[in-house]
Amino acid sequence: MNRSLFLSNVRTADGQAVSVSIVDGRIEALGAHLQAQPDAALEDGGGALLLPGFVEGHTHLDKSHWGQPWYRNEVGPALTDRISNEREWRKTSGHDAGTQSLALARAFVQAGTTRLRTHVDVDTDAGLRYLEGVLATRQTLRDVMDMQIVAFPQSGMLIRPGTVGLLGEALAAGADVLGALDPALIDGDPAASLNTTFELAQRYGKPIDIHLHEPGEVGAFSLKLLLDRVAATGMQGRVVVSHAFCLGALPERERDVLLERLAHLRVALLTSAPASRPVPPLKICKEKGVTIFGGNDGIRDTWTPYGVPDMLERAMLIGLRYDLRRDDDLALAFGCVSDTAAEGCGFDNYGLRSGARADLVLVEADTLAHAIVSRPKRKLVMANGQIVVRNGEWLKAA
Amino acid sequence: MNRSLFLSNVRTADGQAVSVSIVDGRIEALGAHLQAQPDAALEDGGGALLLPGFVEGHTHLDKSHWGQPWYRNEVGPALTDRISNEREWRKTSGHDAGTQSLALARAFVQAGTTRLRTHVDVDTDAGLRYLEGVLATRQTLRDVMDMQIVAFPQSGMLIRPGTVGLLGEALAAGADVLGALDPALIDGDPAASLNTTFELAQRYGKPIDIHLHEPGEVGAFSLKLLLDRVAATGMQGRVVVSHAFCLGALPERERDVLLERLAHLRVALLTSAPASRPVPPLKICKEKGVTIFGGNDGIRDTWTPYGVPDMLERAMLIGLRYDLRRDDDLALAFGCVSDTAAEGCGFDNYGLRSGARADLVLVEADTLAHAIVSRPKRKLVMANGQIVVRNGEWLKAA
Repeated sequence: MNRSLFLSNVRTADGQAVSVSIVDGRIEALGAHLQAQPDAALEDGGGALLLPGFVEGHTHLDKSHWGQPWYRNEVGPALTDRISNEREWRKTSGHDAGTQSLALARAFVQAGTTRLRTHVDVDTDAGLRYLEGVLATRQTLRDVMDMQIVAFPQSGMLIRPGTVGLLGEALAAGADVLGALDPALIDGDPAASLNTTFELAQRYGKPIDIHLHEPGEVGAFSLKLLLDRVAATGMQGRVVVSHAFCLGALPERERDVLLERLAHLRVALLTSAPASRPVPPLKICKEKGVTIFGGNDGIRDTWTPYGVPDMLERAMLIGLRYDLRRDDDLALAFGCVSDTAAEGCGFDNYGLRSGARADLVLVEADTLAHAIVSRPKRKLVMANGQIVVRNGEWLKAA
Repeated sequence: MNRSLFLSNVRTADGQAVSVSIVDGRIEALGAHLQAQPDAALEDGGGALLLPGFVEGHTHLDKSHWGQPWYRNEVGPALTDRISNEREWRKTSGHDAGTQSLALARAFVQAGTTRLRTHVDVDTDAGLRYLEGVLATRQTLRDVMDMQIVAFPQSGMLIRPGTVGLLGEALAAGADVLGALDPALIDGDPAASLNTTFELAQRYGKPIDIHLHEPGEVGAFSLKLLLDRVAATGMQGRVVVSHAFCLGALPERERDVLLERLAHLRVALLTSAPASRPVPPLKICKEKGVTIFGGNDGIRDTWTPYGVPDMLERAMLIGLRYDLRRDDDLALAFGCVSDTAAEGCGFDNYGLRSGARADLVLVEADTLAHAIVSRPKRKLVMANGQIVVRNGEWLKAA
């Protein structure tokens, strides 16, 4: 392992020509007139655009059939159709969460993602089996990816007795975050469901990331109950609400009251910016001080055939969903898969700055906006100060 | 030029292993147990998925800066901001419609598109200059692409005296279709604007393709006026309404009356399936018998930084917009960029069938849905019976 590496001849998103000095896996310095240390390995960036390693704020590594023969989707349209279909398929298909999470996580690194939050199903059929697979993947990729694991009750929590205990075991076994799911429309008892979630999170000292698909007024109701509990338990800054479709479909005044409470309680929002659903208003969230970041959600699984493990493509889809056309607006879309996602998930030592972990991506693109719309092959990916990918290909087995 | 070509070892979207016999640029036969003619050139498809050449139903080849240095978008949000900004930029930037339309059209062929409808700006500043550029591109690519040109009054028609005359000249000079634009919100006089459009189309014996961005009730009003004129002039089957955002935002009953009239008058709809706008309901249109097909709209121009000349990606975006997840639903998305687009635009001799023009695409994909979500490099593109692209690269200059 090279202690020092000097990356010259790259451009930052603001157009500046810079070099980066990297020591012991950290960015020691980044600027226009740096000199390489005598013992540093030298890397010429060839004038490429320099970006920070990308952040995936919400995916489901354990569900994917990435790299496997095509899964023919004949699933019904309801949320419960999809949940049942998946649980049955995972029991009977031989799908292995360890193998599949590794295949997909490696594809993420190959496309420049070095920090990732994944939700992993915990249910009374599978127990902690999927979690064990993803924990093994995290261990395998520990040198190149910083992975947060959310213990996620995909099949419901209160409606499946035994699930609460399993979630506790998952947190004890290495999950970093407690997941949750639609306390009204899946669990059927929003107050009790949220009480249980907050009690569990506090018992294990873990943050919360809840899937809230509930639409319109019912979603707003669940969200209000959730915010009450954030305040009551002192969990400010430790809760993420994923999807939050309801915030895309409320009257302005009602929505803004919720946004102001979200900002005040430092509850962050995650969006995959789906083209077919209402979504929280990105720019208004930012104006109100709400942290909102991006993620792919599931990639090529029994829920959806779509998705690629490329955060530049997700930034593009965010840009399309929010009609971001100006270059300065596209920078917001990129923020959703970089610094804002790091902030929302709590990944530290992030960014293109002295002292941050040296997670870097080089692409051949004129500008940041150009990189987002063209999604070029990654010329170079560096994780923890080590070059792991060149011209889109892995340099070493992991 | 080989008179005969025999393409063996390919799979159709329904999973059948077939060969294709091609003679004089046409599909002579396609099936499971064909024999090559003795004089045929032989091509082994390597088990790849066989698709018909793609159809781009709506783009703007003349506006793009494809392949040029990045255009920094700092444009205001209104339609009129974008129109004025573009007209000024095209006057002063040295942008050349001939060069740019050729670059983009070649990129379309490279990704498997062999039929394309492009709208070309006609206005009182530029006259027919952009049309001349695109006519030259059509001539250059005549052996590999079937191109329809729409004479499009991007800056308005009645509000810019002289435009009607220029549109007539454009139709006389080789444009195939008369374009039009928002008769109420741009032209300010919907009845007069539509009367002029229909008179001009009839005088030159050309079909119509109108950009209708007008939202909700005003769009519905313009659409109703348009349908009245289709009936009055006997132009059934010869009119396309592009975008038709209004049909995504009307009360069901009002919308369905319009859809039923569209079906009855055989007026087709074009959608780019934008993620940020209301869109006509795809499946309901199909149920009502309305032809609805897809297109990219502008690609990397002063309006939008987005877009790639790849109809598989557009099919993916259509699938995402309409939440099409099942394999049978993704086939509908592909229809929007293949047979339904050929029908909507009136491209004849289209498809994977005996007698059709031999426009074929091979991709490495398990299934049609897999091809759409993964958008692999084109293994082979054949246009008019000639192989023009292999492994994503052109074989000959054009």
